[in-house]
Amino acid sequence: MPEKILDVVAIGNAIVDVLARADQDFLDQHDMVKGSMQLVDEAVSDAIYADMGPGTETSGGSAANTAAGLASFHSRVAFVGKVRDDVLGRVFTHDIRSIGVEFDVPPAADGPSTARCLVLVTPDAQRTMSTYLGASSLIGPDDVDPDLVARAKIVFCEGYLWDLPAAKAALVKAMDVAAASDGKVAFSLSDSFCVERHRDEFLDLVKDKVDILFANEAEICSLYQTDSWDEAADHVAGHLEIACLTRSEHGSVIATSEGERVEVPAQMLRRVVDTTGAGDLYAAGFLHGLTHERPLPVCGRLAALAAAEVISHVGARPQVTLAGLESSRL
Amino acid sequence: MPEKILDVVAIGNAIVDVLARADQDFLDQHDMVKGSMQLVDEAVSDAIYADMGPGTETSGGSAANTAAGLASFHSRVAFVGKVRDDVLGRVFTHDIRSIGVEFDVPPAADGPSTARCLVLVTPDAQRTMSTYLGASSLIGPDDVDPDLVARAKIVFCEGYLWDLPAAKAALVKAMDVAAASDGKVAFSLSDSFCVERHRDEFLDLVKDKVDILFANEAEICSLYQTDSWDEAADHVAGHLEIACLTRSEHGSVIATSEGERVEVPAQMLRRVVDTTGAGDLYAAGFLHGLTHERPLPVCGRLAALAAAEVISHVGARPQVTLAGLESSRL
Repeated sequence: MPEKILDVVAIGNAIVDVLARADQDFLDQHDMVKGSMQLVDEAVSDAIYADMGPGTETSGGSAANTAAGLASFHSRVAFVGKVRDDVLGRVFTHDIRSIGVEFDVPPAADGPSTARCLVLVTPDAQRTMSTYLGASSLIGPDDVDPDLVARAKIVFCEGYLWDLPAAKAALVKAMDVAAASDGKVAFSLSDSFCVERHRDEFLDLVKDKVDILFANEAEICSLYQTDSWDEAADHVAGHLEIACLTRSEHGSVIATSEGERVEVPAQMLRRVVDTTGAGDLYAAGFLHGLTHERPLPVCGRLAALAAAEVISHVGARPQVTLAGLESSRL
Repeated sequence: MPEKILDVVAIGNAIVDVLARADQDFLDQHDMVKGSMQLVDEAVSDAIYADMGPGTETSGGSAANTAAGLASFHSRVAFVGKVRDDVLGRVFTHDIRSIGVEFDVPPAADGPSTARCLVLVTPDAQRTMSTYLGASSLIGPDDVDPDLVARAKIVFCEGYLWDLPAAKAALVKAMDVAAASDGKVAFSLSDSFCVERHRDEFLDLVKDKVDILFANEAEICSLYQTDSWDEAADHVAGHLEIACLTRSEHGSVIATSEGERVEVPAQMLRRVVDTTGAGDLYAAGFLHGLTHERPLPVCGRLAALAAAEVISHVGARPQVTLAGLESSRL
């Protein structure tokens, strides 16, 4: 078995976020469902952009945010995703490397531009996202280096990638390498609409390939087609090793295959400004704890702490060193 | 005389800021003087970028920030500056138009890329800037539409443009059109190093062409080569109609050619997070008041209010509607 010199390899879309404030009317006018992520083509992305207010460009992407959070906790982490060799691609690459994440997938030399996600933040701090995947959709199995994955304790995959056949193949390859090299597979359901699009396959994944699952209430209820969170929680706990079930301001529950249920209260650092990245940073805190052999309640508290930091400001990546926050808070 | 359907035409560099946190050691390692702006070429800009932490891209530029602030107060304002037709150029154009500023200078189809300013914010909230001017340096007299300038009550020019001969010619053209069409000329000294580079010409400008001047302590003292702010204030008041002399947390003094001195206390909305844009937004508040025929003490309070808003968050443009802040606060 290769030595586990990495804590986590994260695989996901490589996206630059364009954050702007908007009100409910704006969402209604553009047929957006608050709190959700919709995939759009470049023309629709441009049309929404033309209508929206001044933006702030900042690196994003769900699993990439998790990777950034892990690095900020001083975990050893690599990211796999695809950018174009354009301005936003260089922004993404700079930002993720500068926080300490290994990122060596070569950028695409031609084809569509680097992915952009228009993130509209409403006054209630909820975010609604329209994503143009661009170059990010070019990721495929060849971008997954089996040696890299085999050296990681955990491979973390975002459900969003399931929308693209080649990206799906890349995830399956990474999951299989992890399983064959004594690594664990962590998976995020990403978004309830994403779960709806791929429910049967996600159910198979949860039963067969995933060890650690991250899901919010809407996602886990959609997966098991139930309105009862308790029922969904019972189901999922029977299907894999650890399920991290987040419940916004009500905290989270970590359910294990051994019947354990750890309740974790939400944390609050300051006013909630922008919930973008909350789930991604929850995963970062949890996986940091898990790869450092902390007990599950501590993993949960680290998860809640990282989520609390990222929702206290605009943008989906930490603005302070999470390792510092950990030592001052826990 | 043309009808004054615009309050202000602002002329300046069209820049996208890349904001990141840094400590004093980083500034020392890169020979940067805290609080100043240095011009760098693309290679130096890239080298600093490679070393710095994760950034946030947001539209900037001194006079452009002032224009954005004026629009946020619901003044009628146009901006003149130059971008390339690249991603950052589209970001700049989108952001300034979406806040309500008229911006119709065609982008450059080739040549250097859109200007970038690396803004390093230290824990004391001071900002230190390294600017690669790129396409912004291509601005020249042909970009100044005399009809546009003649329709504005005030033309506002940033001193930074004086570093470039063609841009300087564009400013002189705009100032002359304003003078010939019953408009006023407002000018910002921009930066003490900028004043050092162009002291004699700035002195001539102040005496001959400028009606309203904006300067902080370091700038006005550099202009008159004195350590005494009082002495500098006396000098400048004899040279033009209105001098707005800012003094950071000590507020500002508005000195007029008629011997009046209006003292304006600084305002504080929340904790000071990032002083980027403080002077630019001070100018926005003052010019908004002046073009709406408010008394000088009110102009000063509007200036202090706009500056207080912009230093309470990261980034150099307002995050709330200043017109709303005005009606709730003054």
